[in-house]
Amino acid sequence: MSKFTLALVAGASAAVGAATTAAIYGISKRQLPDETHTITAIPSPTRASPAAPAPLPVRRDDPSHPLLPPVDPSGVFQYGFPGPINDLRSAASLTSAFDRAKRNPHWVAEHITPASVLLRNGDRRHSVFTEDDSIPEKFRGKLKDYFRSGYDRGHQVPAADAKWSQEAMDSTFALSNMCPQVGDGFNRDYWAHFEDFCRRLTSFYPSVRIVTGPLYLPKRDFDGKWRVSYEVIGHPPNIAVPTHFYKVIFAEDGRVGGNVSLGAFVLPNDVIHNDKPLKDFEVPVEALERASGLEFAGLLPPARRKRLCQEVNCSVIVKEYAERQKTMMSPPPTKGSPPATTITQR
Amino acid sequence: MSKFTLALVAGASAAVGAATTAAIYGISKRQLPDETHTITAIPSPTRASPAAPAPLPVRRDDPSHPLLPPVDPSGVFQYGFPGPINDLRSAASLTSAFDRAKRNPHWVAEHITPASVLLRNGDRRHSVFTEDDSIPEKFRGKLKDYFRSGYDRGHQVPAADAKWSQEAMDSTFALSNMCPQVGDGFNRDYWAHFEDFCRRLTSFYPSVRIVTGPLYLPKRDFDGKWRVSYEVIGHPPNIAVPTHFYKVIFAEDGRVGGNVSLGAFVLPNDVIHNDKPLKDFEVPVEALERASGLEFAGLLPPARRKRLCQEVNCSVIVKEYAERQKTMMSPPPTKGSPPATTITQR
Repeated sequence: MSKFTLALVAGASAAVGAATTAAIYGISKRQLPDETHTITAIPSPTRASPAAPAPLPVRRDDPSHPLLPPVDPSGVFQYGFPGPINDLRSAASLTSAFDRAKRNPHWVAEHITPASVLLRNGDRRHSVFTEDDSIPEKFRGKLKDYFRSGYDRGHQVPAADAKWSQEAMDSTFALSNMCPQVGDGFNRDYWAHFEDFCRRLTSFYPSVRIVTGPLYLPKRDFDGKWRVSYEVIGHPPNIAVPTHFYKVIFAEDGRVGGNVSLGAFVLPNDVIHNDKPLKDFEVPVEALERASGLEFAGLLPPARRKRLCQEVNCSVIVKEYAERQKTMMSPPPTKGSPPATTITQR
Repeated sequence: MSKFTLALVAGASAAVGAATTAAIYGISKRQLPDETHTITAIPSPTRASPAAPAPLPVRRDDPSHPLLPPVDPSGVFQYGFPGPINDLRSAASLTSAFDRAKRNPHWVAEHITPASVLLRNGDRRHSVFTEDDSIPEKFRGKLKDYFRSGYDRGHQVPAADAKWSQEAMDSTFALSNMCPQVGDGFNRDYWAHFEDFCRRLTSFYPSVRIVTGPLYLPKRDFDGKWRVSYEVIGHPPNIAVPTHFYKVIFAEDGRVGGNVSLGAFVLPNDVIHNDKPLKDFEVPVEALERASGLEFAGLLPPARRKRLCQEVNCSVIVKEYAERQKTMMSPPPTKGSPPATTITQR
């Protein structure tokens, strides 16, 4: 059988250590309980502290039909709610939810406007990468986990989107806003151009909201079966390396109850050549929702939706700034062709 | 580049379809906004319906220091809270949380007592496997996904633990209580013996709580890197096949604030020979918490904890019932040796 490891094991808590190593275990044989002795704990599911066990009434004339269920499955909450807890974070530059099993965010939401991207009060040279102390130590990504991993600490909300204040920019440098990303050819290239595309949208829309996050997608294997497979970095291995990243873009027209131009994109965490059309990565938001287990636009009525890539030319630009603006304003080259519902990458 | 697929794509919703195919997109070029025109939507993060955009006050004498942040990252919640939503389920036989990305439960909690396991009102021949309608269609495991997958629909809370009522037993047959499990050699053999071990604990403890669930653990690959790799079944592929399963057992002494004998076990979703000692699968609960991203016993003080496998003989028994009882009551053979913090399987 293959060699598996229950990773993430270093540093068992003092509590468990004490329980494990305590020398005195009083009971090695226990008296068999009387069969009529049916003490059952019924703690309140919402109470945090241990609750008192209480005997349950059982109708003695017909023991096969107890008046109340003989068990209380939610009573385990007296020892703690298992979770998952998603560690909702609200910072100046972003709002996010964290995946404690993979040590990556589930999603990170941001907001940019024509004004916010013009302000220049933050400088990334004054920011430093930090561990997010708001996440319990055992579920927190660590700086040392990224060290020599071969992956960038890839911002989900880009630092460049938070130049409007140093504090806002600093808040993008918490590891809870990071995922391991391929550096050359992705984070430092195509992905950066894609982030630039998002910022340029503020030339056309007065308010742009972007949700970014990791995906772990299945791939058809040599035996015809579908498998999800991703690297895990760190010592012990504990931070997942996503196979893909998504962005959902809500470009708002600024009117109350106005139109929202919606675009969803899924890019592989891999080298992407600059000449690859961004539209190749466009997906229906519904497909992204199924793949991620998240819901992005459930409350946005169909009547208010427009398709972003039919309003603007969805393409990354590795050109001079002046030329970028020209390309952005040209009509979309393939207007009317919907994104494929199944994305295959060549 | 390898061929990836954004799976789980069938049946894009009518809403998205409408947005995608709508023929009329009024704006292909938009007027560049005036730079002083800084309309920004500030919806309430907790409000479900779209909120009105409102202009933000910006101090005009020093535009680099706005009185308020120029952006509102949580405003995206007007389009829906992304989640993850964990679909907490409370049934007669179990309480559970569901993983919408993997279409498996995160954990399923149950409670058994000497009385509950003696009652015989439910019969699995009267129960049928059902899809869980309480989970939104696009995140729900389907009966057809398991069909010819090669895996059992493996109960997390066993049907045999809910014989005290037919309704309770029926509620264990929802697919939200299932994971794909290897049948021969695991679900129908060693795992079943392990479930029997749990039931036999009610001969020694008046109240036993068990939390069961799937794991997706990393494995050291040929290149020395650690990878999580698991199959995904269904059409399109959408239900993850766990690499391992865990059980956390809380055996209560029945006293208010009394002692709790704690045992955590992690077993591979693979053939396990019947002669493999159950104790080989014992792990510190802290290690399981790190691996799963869940917390099982955070509110249980160390002083109340005992180690289950030092109180009873933690072993599965493939023998006659009478002989089982004898073995169960014998003192543990390796008393005092704590479980390894890193589990390797041979």
